[in-house]
Amino acid sequence: MHRRAFLKTSTLSIAGVTALGFTNTQSNNPFSSNQLTVNGKRMERRIFELAKFGVDEKGRGYRVAYTKGDIEGRAWFMELMKKAGLNPTIDTAGNIIGRRNGKNNTLKPISFGSHIDMVPDGGNYDGTLGSIAALEVMEILNENKFITEHPLELIIFANEEGGTIGSKAMTEGLTKDGLQQKSQSGLTHAEGIKALGGDPENIASCLRRKGDVHAWLELHIEQGGILEREKIQIGVVEGIVGIVHWEVLIEGFANHAGATPMNMRQDALLAASRFIIAVNEVINSVQGSQVGTVGKINVQPGAYNVIPGKVTVGLEIRDLNAEKIEMLFKEIEKRAAVIAQESKTKISFERQPNESKPALTDKKLQQLINTTAKELGFSTKLMQSGAGHDSQHMADIAPSAMIFIPSIGGISHSPKEFSTATDMENGANVLLQTILKVDKG
Amino acid sequence: MHRRAFLKTSTLSIAGVTALGFTNTQSNNPFSSNQLTVNGKRMERRIFELAKFGVDEKGRGYRVAYTKGDIEGRAWFMELMKKAGLNPTIDTAGNIIGRRNGKNNTLKPISFGSHIDMVPDGGNYDGTLGSIAALEVMEILNENKFITEHPLELIIFANEEGGTIGSKAMTEGLTKDGLQQKSQSGLTHAEGIKALGGDPENIASCLRRKGDVHAWLELHIEQGGILEREKIQIGVVEGIVGIVHWEVLIEGFANHAGATPMNMRQDALLAASRFIIAVNEVINSVQGSQVGTVGKINVQPGAYNVIPGKVTVGLEIRDLNAEKIEMLFKEIEKRAAVIAQESKTKISFERQPNESKPALTDKKLQQLINTTAKELGFSTKLMQSGAGHDSQHMADIAPSAMIFIPSIGGISHSPKEFSTATDMENGANVLLQTILKVDKG
Repeated sequence: MHRRAFLKTSTLSIAGVTALGFTNTQSNNPFSSNQLTVNGKRMERRIFELAKFGVDEKGRGYRVAYTKGDIEGRAWFMELMKKAGLNPTIDTAGNIIGRRNGKNNTLKPISFGSHIDMVPDGGNYDGTLGSIAALEVMEILNENKFITEHPLELIIFANEEGGTIGSKAMTEGLTKDGLQQKSQSGLTHAEGIKALGGDPENIASCLRRKGDVHAWLELHIEQGGILEREKIQIGVVEGIVGIVHWEVLIEGFANHAGATPMNMRQDALLAASRFIIAVNEVINSVQGSQVGTVGKINVQPGAYNVIPGKVTVGLEIRDLNAEKIEMLFKEIEKRAAVIAQESKTKISFERQPNESKPALTDKKLQQLINTTAKELGFSTKLMQSGAGHDSQHMADIAPSAMIFIPSIGGISHSPKEFSTATDMENGANVLLQTILKVDKG
Repeated sequence: MHRRAFLKTSTLSIAGVTALGFTNTQSNNPFSSNQLTVNGKRMERRIFELAKFGVDEKGRGYRVAYTKGDIEGRAWFMELMKKAGLNPTIDTAGNIIGRRNGKNNTLKPISFGSHIDMVPDGGNYDGTLGSIAALEVMEILNENKFITEHPLELIIFANEEGGTIGSKAMTEGLTKDGLQQKSQSGLTHAEGIKALGGDPENIASCLRRKGDVHAWLELHIEQGGILEREKIQIGVVEGIVGIVHWEVLIEGFANHAGATPMNMRQDALLAASRFIIAVNEVINSVQGSQVGTVGKINVQPGAYNVIPGKVTVGLEIRDLNAEKIEMLFKEIEKRAAVIAQESKTKISFERQPNESKPALTDKKLQQLINTTAKELGFSTKLMQSGAGHDSQHMADIAPSAMIFIPSIGGISHSPKEFSTATDMENGANVLLQTILKVDKG
């Protein structure tokens, strides 16, 4: 598998080299830092080159972490990193790390990057943009012979989509149990990490401590439709929402759908329907960006001719404020109690262990991104990230921030996911200039 | 399997013979017909004897048609029929048919019976009561040496629970395609019928024509809670409801549950919830016994963190009046159109091919059952059957009727299904006396 990957890679890297032709417009003499700009066309081409790795038999994107497509995509990316002189290595969690020395290599690195794995049938921009833009930053600095004070570090995190596994391993560690859980690929995380070239038996070796990283920056597509709708070019992320899941069990009484009159039923699905609407009403009842979703439902016995006896639904609430999540949940519980009583059902909640706390980004970095974007002539908006990201873990050990660009139609985790080349270039330029400002201090 | 069944049967039939001891209270001299009464204790004991056949490893009833339990239960039943001199035979559809000659055997038979197969994890009374009561009628006539004018026929229909297969084969026939469909047992109907001793290749040989049967009567548990709630002993069934199923597709747009603000969603499950409540409201909006159920639901993609893009639900409407079913459905369609518009989803309906038309029972037989029950001192109620029965097919070829007795708690298709021994005895006495009155003409 590796061999095949490298064969492919070498073909593609020719395209990568040819791409340098596009840099003719850039001078080889050192520019002053604020004159540097990324090569948007090269970035766009690489987005589509990477998209060729991990396509299933139906033509759908399937660069799921630990699978052949992921491994081949990573090999292609590492080859580009090598050509850029970044000397890529793989840590024990499977994260790819490349380094570009600065003038003072005793300083902690300024780190940036994202991930290149995707959800099944996913899109070409989620994670990929931030990864390719990070490489672009390195190459533009190379091409302009620009040396930063701090060393720079490009990180491609392993298995972001399967639970931000690589960044979790680097910042808080993975448990033995966690490593044994099955991933989307069918492999356990331990097996998958091994397949990426990591070393799950020495997983703790990749751990970093507070202070090990000078700053962390991640460029990403918004994955929602706010920037597009409000015609804003750059989103400055103020934090990544906390996420809590509950499994909700609604117990009625299964009975014959023909022989049980309407007024003698204890229909668990009818009660579940009222519950789902109540969740929506409670979430919408207060101001703010909180979201609440019932995304899954299961009914038993589940036949045309049997009144549903038992329904389970999955409830998710996200917000930047953990207390608000609790407040909304209490309100939902109250509504559920009324529904249960009125429908002669029992409704109970089981909070799931996988919750994630809200992660706020660094205020100074937010301001720096905002100022930088405005200097470059872009409209900006302070906003939350409703999606989870590796940055939420990096925020535990370093000042961290994220830059968003518009997602057309607000679509993500879908083949319809799309961002324009111009927006990508804008975002990468903000990333580049922010890194240079962080470097200057 | 057959051999084991017969071994079991012979042990159990000893208990059957001993049971004759209970008939001491009955005189052996011919009674006048209205002095004959069934042996309730024998019936009750046989209910529990039959319940021993088809119990799965978890102790749940699993006498599903065509399975080992069904085959063994049928063997036990046929052994009792043999002892009662009914000379049981199996028709090409697997129906068990026993005959007791009358004074005038050129007359068409008065037929009665039910089924002994059950739904998975079902109860001990559905079908079983009518089958054991029919045998009881034959035995009481035997024990009292009472010879009817008409020949009498006991029919145990094959696979009632899997779609009234045996009675359908006898009255309208089964198609080749139908025979190839998989049944709950895992076998196709053709394979299953063969396992019962039928002859699926000559399935049409079991067909009967209008006039072949003088009258058909079936005693059954109500399967609903109306008789118990209203403290009525005997239900006189005026008809068996028609049943129509629709698969309802609700199409929204799947998107990231974190990144998509509440007001930018096209949540198919939220729309489905509104639809389910609307179905309930429409069904309850008019007087009558109609029922409407959404018993199944499926959501895609079906994850905590994805806004549901596509939901399918199963809609069922039942009523004695086919026009009322259409009227209610039109109303539901109207409500669905409003919900679709308001929720930015698309809702479409696919009517399923398996619909059954309402089947009215014979008015004269209804009156006869009602009069007979009242003469025996029982309270009665004219009611519909919300459940499907073999009688709905028999109504196509003969004057047909059904007698209901209370189901405690209105529970059916469940191990909690229960009817009292007294109610069963009452029902069987009404069956016996009605048969004798039909015989007198």
